[in-house]
Amino acid sequence: MDAARYHRDDLKTLAFQLLARGGMEQSKADIVAELLVRTDEIGVTTHGISMIPYYLPELAAGRMASEGSFEVIRDTGATLVWDGGYLPGHWLMTQALDICMERATTHGIAALAIRRSHHIGCLSVFTRIAAEKGLVCYIATSDPSGAWVAPYGGAEPTFTPNPWAIGYPAQGHPVLIDTCASITTVSKVRAHINDGIRFSHPWMLDAEGNATTDPNVVNADPRGTIQLTGGTDHGHKGYGIALMVEMLTQALAGHGRAQHPDRWGGNVYLQVMAPDAFAGAEPFVEETTYLGELCRNNRPADGGPPVRVPGDRVQSALADAAENGIQHPDEVWRRVSASAADLGVDLPSPIPERTATQ
Amino acid sequence: MDAARYHRDDLKTLAFQLLARGGMEQSKADIVAELLVRTDEIGVTTHGISMIPYYLPELAAGRMASEGSFEVIRDTGATLVWDGGYLPGHWLMTQALDICMERATTHGIAALAIRRSHHIGCLSVFTRIAAEKGLVCYIATSDPSGAWVAPYGGAEPTFTPNPWAIGYPAQGHPVLIDTCASITTVSKVRAHINDGIRFSHPWMLDAEGNATTDPNVVNADPRGTIQLTGGTDHGHKGYGIALMVEMLTQALAGHGRAQHPDRWGGNVYLQVMAPDAFAGAEPFVEETTYLGELCRNNRPADGGPPVRVPGDRVQSALADAAENGIQHPDEVWRRVSASAADLGVDLPSPIPERTATQ
Repeated sequence: MDAARYHRDDLKTLAFQLLARGGMEQSKADIVAELLVRTDEIGVTTHGISMIPYYLPELAAGRMASEGSFEVIRDTGATLVWDGGYLPGHWLMTQALDICMERATTHGIAALAIRRSHHIGCLSVFTRIAAEKGLVCYIATSDPSGAWVAPYGGAEPTFTPNPWAIGYPAQGHPVLIDTCASITTVSKVRAHINDGIRFSHPWMLDAEGNATTDPNVVNADPRGTIQLTGGTDHGHKGYGIALMVEMLTQALAGHGRAQHPDRWGGNVYLQVMAPDAFAGAEPFVEETTYLGELCRNNRPADGGPPVRVPGDRVQSALADAAENGIQHPDEVWRRVSASAADLGVDLPSPIPERTATQ
Repeated sequence: MDAARYHRDDLKTLAFQLLARGGMEQSKADIVAELLVRTDEIGVTTHGISMIPYYLPELAAGRMASEGSFEVIRDTGATLVWDGGYLPGHWLMTQALDICMERATTHGIAALAIRRSHHIGCLSVFTRIAAEKGLVCYIATSDPSGAWVAPYGGAEPTFTPNPWAIGYPAQGHPVLIDTCASITTVSKVRAHINDGIRFSHPWMLDAEGNATTDPNVVNADPRGTIQLTGGTDHGHKGYGIALMVEMLTQALAGHGRAQHPDRWGGNVYLQVMAPDAFAGAEPFVEETTYLGELCRNNRPADGGPPVRVPGDRVQSALADAAENGIQHPDEVWRRVSASAADLGVDLPSPIPERTATQ
């Protein structure tokens, strides 16, 4: 971890300049930059401005669309399908969230499947927006051109890690669950490869299907894979989630692996529900708050740290970022700095280190 | 496994007689008996007629309601909440599925939360009905009076295993995913205790939070727990699912742990979607079928058996049951026979064993 910390506004300016010079329409670059910095603010530095060096070649090659809008394929009121035309995922998702929150208020529940979005980044950034407004928000995404995870009992890369997240209101701050069908993610595999380190647990499979800690198996020939949640012991659990996410994001969107897409993309399934259309917002929050306290007050296993509820760490990361600025791992800052040098964008100045008397 | 096999009609008669003599209204006993036998037919013998010896004392004590209907708490068209009044879960679920399938056809998507159902049994039996009609069907259930699973990093029983299932169409037969937030289930823990055996893997936690293969920790004082999916290594994945299922089934239903219910029940969340209200039924099945083949044709890990898709084993179990009848583990037949003796119900005759020439 680099010692330097940066102010969120300076990082947003950096992100905006990189994306805009990289060719993205300014109004979209502004939204994407804001959401990437929010991702860093909640502590998910694998998916914040860290992604820009991966997005820039996509923009340059026209594989991430730089302007224009989505096409509405279907709209029945409570259900929608969009073609995202490989537009920036963060921009598409802000539009998607707006319409689904509005439709959930009208119909109680609304679902949208998006084909051919580009990468949408950190899901919690979006579920948090809806949950802060008192709504339940589920998001899943997959890339039908990507294959990193094998079906349970298999050895050939078949799925993406297929992240899913759900956010919902509770007293204090929302519960924000953000996880995936595999034990670890492509971003973490890349970060381990870039840092030249192994995983602490055997979270990968080599091409023969043997468990290993080596992230480099994904670059071997034939390629290894990332293990499903549950691992060799009970990976059928992660397999079920992987299949479900592929179905929600691809089959409902009418576009997926059967079309053999060969460019980086993100199919999306987004569902929003209004507790008021069920038993009501007040009993909803009463239950989620009560359960959260049961968890936080749970006796820690074997003298370990206190039990957290998903979303608690987001809250502390936000407070830390507001007070002390945002810090990135060396590996991230190295790649972002290289992109800035390429595009002639100035790096911001770090926040001056506090002295002992402060 | 007892060698004896029984004809499904004979088992249904047995199940019906046990439930009816146990006090359940005949029209409900008929539906519950049919669904329990269907559960055995798809090979889930932990949740078939095996449940009757657990239901009978509930009926006798009036803790499972024997007659009457549910109360509609909310109905907005696409969203509903019912109070199930602790009626038999299988009966409630047939009513719930009918209305959600109808509403999904009208609105594209429909969701129903049920408070105070009794136990609903095997989820795949219900998702299969909807999937066979071309619909996507998600079901989750929890019992707010039950506590068998600790939050990740904790040692105190807090959640039920919180099963969830999703079924959806594909060419040939539906995909039927049916799993839960914990590694194993209460039924399997009970079966291991009844059989006096340990789990082959450390799927339990003792009261201090140490992993163990011993199912009896759930009867110790203080009580141990069933491990979350992902186990000590990555149980935060199962924790997210456990919290999500509690929220869907309890917070949306406006009834849960905050009300401290002290009787066996099953809160339910049921969601049905019509692929026709998204990109259409035909592209839907094209994608799910293509992905299924990618999985089945996947190179098996380390010389293992061929990769299956969830739902494939259901199909072979159905074929086997139709050809050879239904077989139960000794532990199940012992308990069912005891219930039959108690209520003066005759046991059916097994199917005569085939001779070598047949």
